[in-house]
Amino acid sequence: MAEEMTPKVNMETIVSLCKRRGFVFQSSELYGGQASCWDYGPLGVELKRNIRDAWWRSVVQERDDMVGIDASILMHPQVWEASGHLQGFTDPLTECKGCHRRWRADEAKDGRCPSCGGELTEPRMFNLLFKTFMGPVEDSASTVYLRPETAQGIFVNFENVLATSRKKLPFGIAQIGKSFRNEITPGNFIFRSREFEQMEIEYFVKPGTDEQWFRYWLEERFNWYVNLGIKRQNLRLREHMHHELAHYAKCCYDIEYLFPMGWSELEGIANRGDYDLSRHSQFSGRSLTYFDEESGQHITPYVIEPSAGVDRSLLAFLLDAYDEEPDKEGIRVVLRFHPTLAPVKVAVLPLSRNPRLQPLAREVYNRLRRCWLVQYDDAQSIGRRYRRQDEIGTPLAVTIDFQSLEDNQVTIRDRDTMKQIRVPLGVLEETLERKLAGEPLEVLPPGGSYWLGWGE
Amino acid sequence: MAEEMTPKVNMETIVSLCKRRGFVFQSSELYGGQASCWDYGPLGVELKRNIRDAWWRSVVQERDDMVGIDASILMHPQVWEASGHLQGFTDPLTECKGCHRRWRADEAKDGRCPSCGGELTEPRMFNLLFKTFMGPVEDSASTVYLRPETAQGIFVNFENVLATSRKKLPFGIAQIGKSFRNEITPGNFIFRSREFEQMEIEYFVKPGTDEQWFRYWLEERFNWYVNLGIKRQNLRLREHMHHELAHYAKCCYDIEYLFPMGWSELEGIANRGDYDLSRHSQFSGRSLTYFDEESGQHITPYVIEPSAGVDRSLLAFLLDAYDEEPDKEGIRVVLRFHPTLAPVKVAVLPLSRNPRLQPLAREVYNRLRRCWLVQYDDAQSIGRRYRRQDEIGTPLAVTIDFQSLEDNQVTIRDRDTMKQIRVPLGVLEETLERKLAGEPLEVLPPGGSYWLGWGE
Repeated sequence: MAEEMTPKVNMETIVSLCKRRGFVFQSSELYGGQASCWDYGPLGVELKRNIRDAWWRSVVQERDDMVGIDASILMHPQVWEASGHLQGFTDPLTECKGCHRRWRADEAKDGRCPSCGGELTEPRMFNLLFKTFMGPVEDSASTVYLRPETAQGIFVNFENVLATSRKKLPFGIAQIGKSFRNEITPGNFIFRSREFEQMEIEYFVKPGTDEQWFRYWLEERFNWYVNLGIKRQNLRLREHMHHELAHYAKCCYDIEYLFPMGWSELEGIANRGDYDLSRHSQFSGRSLTYFDEESGQHITPYVIEPSAGVDRSLLAFLLDAYDEEPDKEGIRVVLRFHPTLAPVKVAVLPLSRNPRLQPLAREVYNRLRRCWLVQYDDAQSIGRRYRRQDEIGTPLAVTIDFQSLEDNQVTIRDRDTMKQIRVPLGVLEETLERKLAGEPLEVLPPGGSYWLGWGE
Repeated sequence: MAEEMTPKVNMETIVSLCKRRGFVFQSSELYGGQASCWDYGPLGVELKRNIRDAWWRSVVQERDDMVGIDASILMHPQVWEASGHLQGFTDPLTECKGCHRRWRADEAKDGRCPSCGGELTEPRMFNLLFKTFMGPVEDSASTVYLRPETAQGIFVNFENVLATSRKKLPFGIAQIGKSFRNEITPGNFIFRSREFEQMEIEYFVKPGTDEQWFRYWLEERFNWYVNLGIKRQNLRLREHMHHELAHYAKCCYDIEYLFPMGWSELEGIANRGDYDLSRHSQFSGRSLTYFDEESGQHITPYVIEPSAGVDRSLLAFLLDAYDEEPDKEGIRVVLRFHPTLAPVKVAVLPLSRNPRLQPLAREVYNRLRRCWLVQYDDAQSIGRRYRRQDEIGTPLAVTIDFQSLEDNQVTIRDRDTMKQIRVPLGVLEETLERKLAGEPLEVLPPGGSYWLGWGE
């Protein structure tokens, strides 16, 4: 049991892989780095796109009761008064009288600096909103804030969405976008950064049905991670204790993942009651209600909020996919991504750089990249190239050899089993598509000839 | 000729349609609106996603010589010193001594306030960078800026991308993301706003080949708009005159679109020479060169930059798709979106709300939304529902009638021709897919029985 609780890969290994292979770079590294900001490289951006798309597909496209929006980052300052962020979005900040490092008070509970052991000042409340100035005058009238969450962009558009989408309760609004929090102590790679990306749902329900919908979304969102390949034993649910609950929340659970630094929040699911719509109604003077045809009454819906982080999910998917296995050349590093998330779906590899192989290999490559993100690689030995693709999690490789020039067949190699099959070019896309959709490679399209177990 | 130069739809019509149908809302409208910020509603967010995806597919997925990245909005302040933005990203600002309204000096050229006719102050240079403060101290040491362009995120990652992607010259890096400019006078709906989204490419080439690649990208990007349905006569190229050129640019062309306010920039394509890499090399002290195996020399690549706006493109696609035609019920408003861009691909419409039709209609709807974003609509007459779908640009509608219950066939109706065909349920997805890919509806899948010309 204790062993199961130990993450199998440490953060340094993942950070190093991310930099080496182009998933994530330190932002502005050229200038010594911008603390707690991160840039996604060529593979990271594709992984991120795939995560966003899988989420959008699952919560918008495939559902009858959801629509999306994309609100701006800079919003009217009154939004943050109504939401309570201007007043209450604070952390207790303390400073060491010796080394002048600053800490969140709960990180230095015994009153001594965790860095030098010096004495700390009395904590004061520090607001986490980033502020800026809009328009050509820098005074208080033009102060605006970078949104600390995408959620409020949904609440202030509740009326507009209701009017234009003609949805009935229960229905939800989904949004993906950047948020900014001036965290005192960001850290753990992309887990907690000051600029981050959220995937948030506000699901509006009739009061009284909120507990049932809360449980529904808890299960739905938990399963989303499992269905995309996160191992169930690395996920758990944790109910917020009373003192942890935000002032607006009736109930909140975290979906936690076993990160290298321990169990930490991957996604929060909160029952926010009617707090948000009521507050915005109060501050704007507009009635934000829903006319319930059944009862003939105007009601203020309750809200269930599943709030996920893109960067955090990406980190969890990376960590969970990471695997090492000994082989004759040392250690094989494999990212066992779910095919839906893998940045590169297929690698096209001519057996060697022999110019006779190139025309067919390029032809296959040009064909396949109409369907997927595909990499062409002809540098070094075929074994090295398989390893390179394993390390970035490419599910399938297509190898073109001299036999291919004769029989118009190519070899497909599976990342996880390392098994290989040979298929006619005519059914290549179809076979790859079925394999990427989860069918075992041994199930072949009708009429395809093949052989198994070709060693590397 | 003069007639061709007149846009056929005015901005008010589009703004009103956008609000009414849920494409674009004024940001924070609940609180009187946040000037020059816009929120994308349920249809707008889908249109935006489709534009981004079409661009990414065209410039990353389908190309061998391009990769993507996703850099952070908050970067190291030295980036903006090196890029020249801290010093030179300014507009001349003038203020009316009477009404105190502020203007960009070129908007009030005769020295009198365009609003009240009052006398204006001497122009002073106003920097368009938004600034904020990172970390828990608000002093100059922690001042950071919201990026005014995504381009610099590419330049500072040049080394990292080169090392991890192993690309050879010529190659490019693409990025989509938000940028922020504190414009003195934003306006024209989503055309010029202070928060906006860019799609930028930095294409690195050997010096000497830059002019040829410049022309290549000019043509490539022009055709992208045409291939996605923008009418050629509404597009033109305009070369920047010498005094318009940015200090870094050797040459620049705008792809202009005939917006309601006249010909205006849709995308800029610039030959930036080696300005950016040289500056960052100078400011960071790191050599940002490329080792050219052919000549055995380290060279600083030249850069061609096609820089497009997501919001601007979206506005152009909306305007260009807008059409009105008289019909027996008054005026039919149609958004003739290219199928790739249409927010909703297919509408599923039971002929009436009769409960006998519902099970099959829901079954078809559930099947189709696995493939596309699909709307189900059973409210009001079928004619009204076709009009509603026309107005949001849905290319195809599938109608289920009582005959469908007998013969398992449904009707597909084409938005543009209003022609209808009848197809067996077994080939429905295939037929829709071929139609969405541009095949005329009259070309039918083998074995499909059909009839044409069923009137509304």
